[in-house]
Amino acid sequence: MNNNKAILLIHCKDKQGIVATVTDFLYRNNGSITKLDQHVDSENDVFFMRVEWDLTGQKPNMAIFVSKMTHCLYDILARDQSNEWNANISIIISNHKEVGLIADKFNIDFYHLPITKENKVEQEKRQLKLLEKYEINLVVLARYMQILTNKITNKYSNRIINIHHSFLPAFPGAKPYHSAFERGVKIIGATSHYVTEDLDEGPIIEQDVAHITHKDSIKDLIRKGKDLEKLVLSRAIRSHLQRETLVYKNKTIVFNR
Amino acid sequence: MNNNKAILLIHCKDKQGIVATVTDFLYRNNGSITKLDQHVDSENDVFFMRVEWDLTGQKPNMAIFVSKMTHCLYDILARDQSNEWNANISIIISNHKEVGLIADKFNIDFYHLPITKENKVEQEKRQLKLLEKYEINLVVLARYMQILTNKITNKYSNRIINIHHSFLPAFPGAKPYHSAFERGVKIIGATSHYVTEDLDEGPIIEQDVAHITHKDSIKDLIRKGKDLEKLVLSRAIRSHLQRETLVYKNKTIVFNR
Amino acid sequence: MNNNKAILLIHCKDKQGIVATVTDFLYRNNGSITKLDQHVDSENDVFFMRVEWDLTGQKPNMAIFVSKMTHCLYDILARDQSNEWNANISIIISNHKEVGLIADKFNIDFYHLPITKENKVEQEKRQLKLLEKYEINLVVLARYMQILTNKITNKYSNRIINIHHSFLPAFPGAKPYHSAFERGVKIIGATSHYVTEDLDEGPIIEQDVAHITHKDSIKDLIRKGKDLEKLVLSRAIRSHLQRETLVYKNKTIVFNR
Amino acid sequence: MNNNKAILLIHCKDKQGIVATVTDFLYRNNGSITKLDQHVDSENDVFFMRVEWDLTGQKPNMAIFVSKMTHCLYDILARDQSNEWNANISIIISNHKEVGLIADKFNIDFYHLPITKENKVEQEKRQLKLLEKYEINLVVLARYMQILTNKITNKYSNRIINIHHSFLPAFPGAKPYHSAFERGVKIIGATSHYVTEDLDEGPIIEQDVAHITHKDSIKDLIRKGKDLEKLVLSRAIRSHLQRETLVYKNKTIVFNR
Repeated sequence: MNNNKAILLIHCKDKQGIVATVTDFLYRNNGSITKLDQHVDSENDVFFMRVEWDLTGQKPNMAIFVSKMTHCLYDILARDQSNEWNANISIIISNHKEVGLIADKFNIDFYHLPITKENKVEQEKRQLKLLEKYEINLVVLARYMQILTNKITNKYSNRIINIHHSFLPAFPGAKPYHSAFERGVKIIGATSHYVTEDLDEGPIIEQDVAHITHKDSIKDLIRKGKDLEKLVLSRAIRSHLQRETLVYKNKTIVFNR
Repeated sequence: MNNNKAILLIHCKDKQGIVATVTDFLYRNNGSITKLDQHVDSENDVFFMRVEWDLTGQKPNMAIFVSKMTHCLYDILARDQSNEWNANISIIISNHKEVGLIADKFNIDFYHLPITKENKVEQEKRQLKLLEKYEINLVVLARYMQILTNKITNKYSNRIINIHHSFLPAFPGAKPYHSAFERGVKIIGATSHYVTEDLDEGPIIEQDVAHITHKDSIKDLIRKGKDLEKLVLSRAIRSHLQRETLVYKNKTIVFNR
Repeated sequence: MNNNKAILLIHCKDKQGIVATVTDFLYRNNGSITKLDQHVDSENDVFFMRVEWDLTGQKPNMAIFVSKMTHCLYDILARDQSNEWNANISIIISNHKEVGLIADKFNIDFYHLPITKENKVEQEKRQLKLLEKYEINLVVLARYMQILTNKITNKYSNRIINIHHSFLPAFPGAKPYHSAFERGVKIIGATSHYVTEDLDEGPIIEQDVAHITHKDSIKDLIRKGKDLEKLVLSRAIRSHLQRETLVYKNKTIVFNR
Repeated sequence: MNNNKAILLIHCKDKQGIVATVTDFLYRNNGSITKLDQHVDSENDVFFMRVEWDLTGQKPNMAIFVSKMTHCLYDILARDQSNEWNANISIIISNHKEVGLIADKFNIDFYHLPITKENKVEQEKRQLKLLEKYEINLVVLARYMQILTNKITNKYSNRIINIHHSFLPAFPGAKPYHSAFERGVKIIGATSHYVTEDLDEGPIIEQDVAHITHKDSIKDLIRKGKDLEKLVLSRAIRSHLQRETLVYKNKTIVFNR
């Protein structure tokens, strides 16, 4: 990602002349357009445009929330090491102490915030303070098995990305691989989405699936699913960081597609 | 498909020595095994086996039920013309008269049985009589937009294959592409399954998906879905005709996977 | 496809202001832009744009060349029947007489032009005359196992689409499934491309693949490949008919991607 | 993976009674068969069988060779951390010093062996000694940009797995993403294979592909390819460690497919 780019995302009621007006404006201001993507939702008469041009950028700060399953965390850290993304990984927050060892390996600030029914409200306040302190722009739930309250989801609207281990809307909630096995489906999936108040109902950013057979046990589904989850989550993070996503009517426009 | 093959499907409580016993039996009876596939569901302690050996076969008879959308019908007829399957297409039954023109093109007996609330019971009796008269072994619902009663589904248990235009269990029932558009999913799918009393709840034989983007209108989803439906239905028909499917606990074992 | 649309494809050396100039022109002339897609090849400094706006259209005429394998032909004819494309299928030309029966079924003019070493030049003259007589805009080689000379390929440059049964550049030439089996690959593919003088070297429009295993015999590869070929060819035809393709440096820009 | 399993791989000229003989033998010796997979190559009249039964196992030792690109290395180390595989990662060998920092993070012995034309023979002797000292059973070339001589490839026949960044046999050798861009293909791929004397010609274990468009620059291909390489390599390693692979006529039988 080039730091010298600016990106303009527009959505408004469609009317003749929008593209001409915008591009003319940029032309007169010496902005050399490097990418222009435009979309009209003709069923709702809404116009979307994404224009990218040269500027000097700033790196956003990421926080990662994670529970015991660390495959997505490792995947994110490895991508960070090889500079795949234009972002700082500022903190890792987990309800599991052991994750601290991984954070140490990669020299990232770590906070162990175990969650119980009793301390949930209090711990979330701590989380919010940390997000502010570290000036976090994007929260990634990298298999974080806790449900956030609307205190956080409203404040970081369209800035919290979750990975759910099923092809939503199939199998929302807990234990989707068990449900998939029970139903006898022939594909499993993963879904990354922005987090809203409604569990697993937020705007979908990215989905992918893998074929399975009757030979696959629940354990096999979990193992195969882990590779899906890593890919689907990292693609969503990338699209967000590239400012290629735009939320509209609980759906996403992803401008690299 | 070779007509000189016999296929044995076994499922029973697992115990030591089953494979040895069966293969020994076939060996002593001069049956040269050409394919053997075996599977143990260790969570339920059940043993499955499919053995294929040489014999002289018989062609099963197929009936196709179809409404106005004829893409699956054309696909099936084209495969029949190029002898992809070991089956006779004996009759086409439709609630739409125009389908008769296609049946004529391919010289297949056609019955126009329009369905209304009032005549549904009576028409289903006619359907059952036709299935008997033509000695039908497999009923294919190739986008047949009517719901069969348990009179038919019970009698032809595990011998009626439907194509549903979503990746079940997501979007069961009517208008799944509209629901998929509404939810903003990034993949659409199709599911072929054996028909049971419970709508869209029968054992899944085959599923596949296609990636979509925000650029796709409902019309695009329908168009892209049609190609999925054709493939997923024809693969399920083939697996059934090859006797590679075995239903167990409302799931399928598909022995070519 | 809507008949009331016009499409402008532009490619030229990149310079500031192109988008503004074009969209301003259309705006001043009352053309309501329904789709705009733009691409800059920054390595070669070339600018591409596709703009779609309302007008009244005209249906292009298609010719289909086919040999003995008719799965692609059937697929094309079925799509034509359900009006998937904005085109007339004007003639079918084959070196195999039996194909005439299919052409009859679908009421399409048929010409049987068998090819031998001796008559090849002469027969190609006949083909050219037919293409002129029927005012053909697009020639589809739907598994036509003959090599066209540059008399035809030059005249119909970027207007002849072929389907090759491998993922090019792997396995060009004859019998790709046999070569794939020999090499032990785990995926097979199909490639649709514009035909140039150089066999299997023209600009690629569309490719897709399917996973195979050691269990698949050559016969299985051929069977599975047929479904790939149908899909990949029909997608390429659609992109061409929608004027979404643009050839540049022996590559294609496909504007629906 | 269960350590208490033994696996028998058989291939021999096909004759009646093999399955019966083998399974009978295991039955009489109290071996409870947990998986049986069988395959006949009818074109070459060869019989393959894989039988899995209970025993106590031993962990194989892995060596990883890697150059500057570390995405596959990180992926392997993360899988090792979460015990996805039944193996020890004993050493990492690299021609790039910086890789040592990663090895340190994960507490794995590291050897920096830079390769030049002059020292190549000598360094390979060192590599061989290390492989012996660490009792290595499997060598993984995780994007190791050096060509091994037949001193190593012969000694570790069918025990060296390489990842090549194209769908072989397309684009063998160096810079496949550049060649793919040049040719204008619409899919890119990755291939894992056992290493033989002939560069990129060894038995293919696993392949996968990703769709690309004209919008993707060479840099995009490299980025998207990295995710493919990780998956394809790790699947091959897993199949090998599970003893699910069998090499025959420069092809692989992979018994989980």
